[in-house]
Amino acid sequence: MGEAWTAEQERVLCILPFPEPTELIESIEKKHPNVKFLYHTLNWLPKSQPFPQAEIDEKYPWKEATILCTFTALPSDPKIAPNLRFIHFLSAGTDHVSKTPIYRNSDITLTTSSGIHGPQIAEWVIMQILNHSHSEKKLIEWQNQHKWGAHQEIGFARDSVGQRLGVLGYGSIGRQTAKVAKAMGMDIIAFTASPRKTPESKKDSGYIVPGTGDPDGTLPSAWYSGLDKQSLHNFLKQDIDVLLVAVPLTEQTRHFIGKEEFEILGKKNAFIANIARGSILQQDDLIAALKKKEGGLRGAALDVTDPEPLNEESELWDLENVAVTPHVSGMGTTYQERSFAILERNLTNLENGKPLINVVDRKRGY
Amino acid sequence: MGEAWTAEQERVLCILPFPEPTELIESIEKKHPNVKFLYHTLNWLPKSQPFPQAEIDEKYPWKEATILCTFTALPSDPKIAPNLRFIHFLSAGTDHVSKTPIYRNSDITLTTSSGIHGPQIAEWVIMQILNHSHSEKKLIEWQNQHKWGAHQEIGFARDSVGQRLGVLGYGSIGRQTAKVAKAMGMDIIAFTASPRKTPESKKDSGYIVPGTGDPDGTLPSAWYSGLDKQSLHNFLKQDIDVLLVAVPLTEQTRHFIGKEEFEILGKKNAFIANIARGSILQQDDLIAALKKKEGGLRGAALDVTDPEPLNEESELWDLENVAVTPHVSGMGTTYQERSFAILERNLTNLENGKPLINVVDRKRGY
Repeated sequence: MGEAWTAEQERVLCILPFPEPTELIESIEKKHPNVKFLYHTLNWLPKSQPFPQAEIDEKYPWKEATILCTFTALPSDPKIAPNLRFIHFLSAGTDHVSKTPIYRNSDITLTTSSGIHGPQIAEWVIMQILNHSHSEKKLIEWQNQHKWGAHQEIGFARDSVGQRLGVLGYGSIGRQTAKVAKAMGMDIIAFTASPRKTPESKKDSGYIVPGTGDPDGTLPSAWYSGLDKQSLHNFLKQDIDVLLVAVPLTEQTRHFIGKEEFEILGKKNAFIANIARGSILQQDDLIAALKKKEGGLRGAALDVTDPEPLNEESELWDLENVAVTPHVSGMGTTYQERSFAILERNLTNLENGKPLINVVDRKRGY
Repeated sequence: MGEAWTAEQERVLCILPFPEPTELIESIEKKHPNVKFLYHTLNWLPKSQPFPQAEIDEKYPWKEATILCTFTALPSDPKIAPNLRFIHFLSAGTDHVSKTPIYRNSDITLTTSSGIHGPQIAEWVIMQILNHSHSEKKLIEWQNQHKWGAHQEIGFARDSVGQRLGVLGYGSIGRQTAKVAKAMGMDIIAFTASPRKTPESKKDSGYIVPGTGDPDGTLPSAWYSGLDKQSLHNFLKQDIDVLLVAVPLTEQTRHFIGKEEFEILGKKNAFIANIARGSILQQDDLIAALKKKEGGLRGAALDVTDPEPLNEESELWDLENVAVTPHVSGMGTTYQERSFAILERNLTNLENGKPLINVVDRKRGY
């Protein structure tokens, strides 16, 4: 920082809600002598303040910036920032800015941080599967009571060897969950919106945290696809022991899993983990299926609910077979580092005339 | 059952503390027409009754039996059962019978169920690592309070990518934990009593639940060995983030990890998981290291303590960074099935004149 930008430089303007990650930025500048960062902290608190758009338009050197790195801050008009080559978002999606002029009335390339949550959220899913099967809630209760309990009280734990994980939405989170589950001895089946029949189409096209995930899509023993009920049911009927819900929320996936679907899953007393959006599940039907003595669900782990925050009176809080967490599965210490790794990859691609990664398709919406 | 044994048959006498697993036995008899089981349930409760040795000697057809399948029941003299070719134990070890005449004064082959706990206990270890790093205790507290907490209160979770798992004792449990941890993005280093320098020596020589573990020992990036302090310290100094204690308890491993070792581990604020025996750790030193503000341990997960049950007054129960569970990590629904799979493998090996697997080395003690 400190030094002024020069015309020859790639000028990266960062407007982010946390202190400057000095080491990360210095390391990128060192590897890319043509790149120069200018960092601003914008502490905007969504719940208490109106968005400071006028200040944002005036305060920052929009004319000079060639790259913007941001969560929510954008100029109110694309003309204010005529030299922007691309905008890198620290969020996984861009739905929160989809009504802005930059999104609607410009063709500035937008890149996201999609893919960086894979390991973090997969760990939450694996943790919840294990906590359920190993009666961890009870074990913690015993510890709180200083009680050396007898295992007969909790019954034997059912380990995962030979069980089947169904992954509804085989993106970065689903793939990393599959990788760990496979190592635990599980069989994996995948469900995607559109068919993946060729090896090429099975690949993960987004950013992958190095060493994780299923880049080539080789882990599933079978693939299913389609957004209609029949295709969905065909997938759910495959003796699924654990269902991971990891599809984006769209008009097609809203209430995708309801009474009928829970009945199919109930035949194997499946366990459900939802890290996507609460309203993908019909929540009342979910509660009914979780309370059923026979042919219901074994349990559920929900990091997302409908609505959020979950109503204090909701039955979900007290069901013995349910884990509710307040949308925290993606909150990881490596968030910044991985998001900047995507930015750096794209700076390199720009230098080498290669296409950028994690580019938003404005029509598809992600 | 019901039919009498004939002289041509391999006559398997089972004396076990649970009801006859009819399906398992029928399936073995079907595949091995020369094998005939006789099953007895012996409900002996260690804490309330003296061991019914006289009854055991009298009640069962010892003269005819050629194979014994048992937990604790043995004839008081090898001469009582002159035709025994081998004894299969449903336990992982045979320390509980090491003072009996069968163990001391006979050379009847003894086989164990070592290896069957791998997936089950590895899941407990992975669960505890994740519960600690994802603040699961707090999340469960929030759920109990119907509270949609703010993630700032628990801080960001540190996922496992790039962290290092040190496995002290690279047997079936250590190997399967390594397999899952590797899938989570961790680096693995292994410690064994004797050096494993050749590819052959790195192999797992015992029973492996199919599809699990590290049969060829290819997962560790480095191997360490030796039972002296210097060798142990050399291993512990390798920037270990998570230490899994999975060595058998012997005179050499009792109090293997004490003050000095916790200090080395404290440099990286390591997390410790112990599924072996409580007295491998110096428990007072462990508590001190867990309470240290700086240079101590990040946390510990203990399925075993010293003594067991853990004293109600022990500080361990209330330490925020500790999980204590009452020696339950190995209690799995697949226990019988996998133990009988080893027995069946050995029946097959016997028929084909091949050496038995999981044979106890009476001198080494396991």
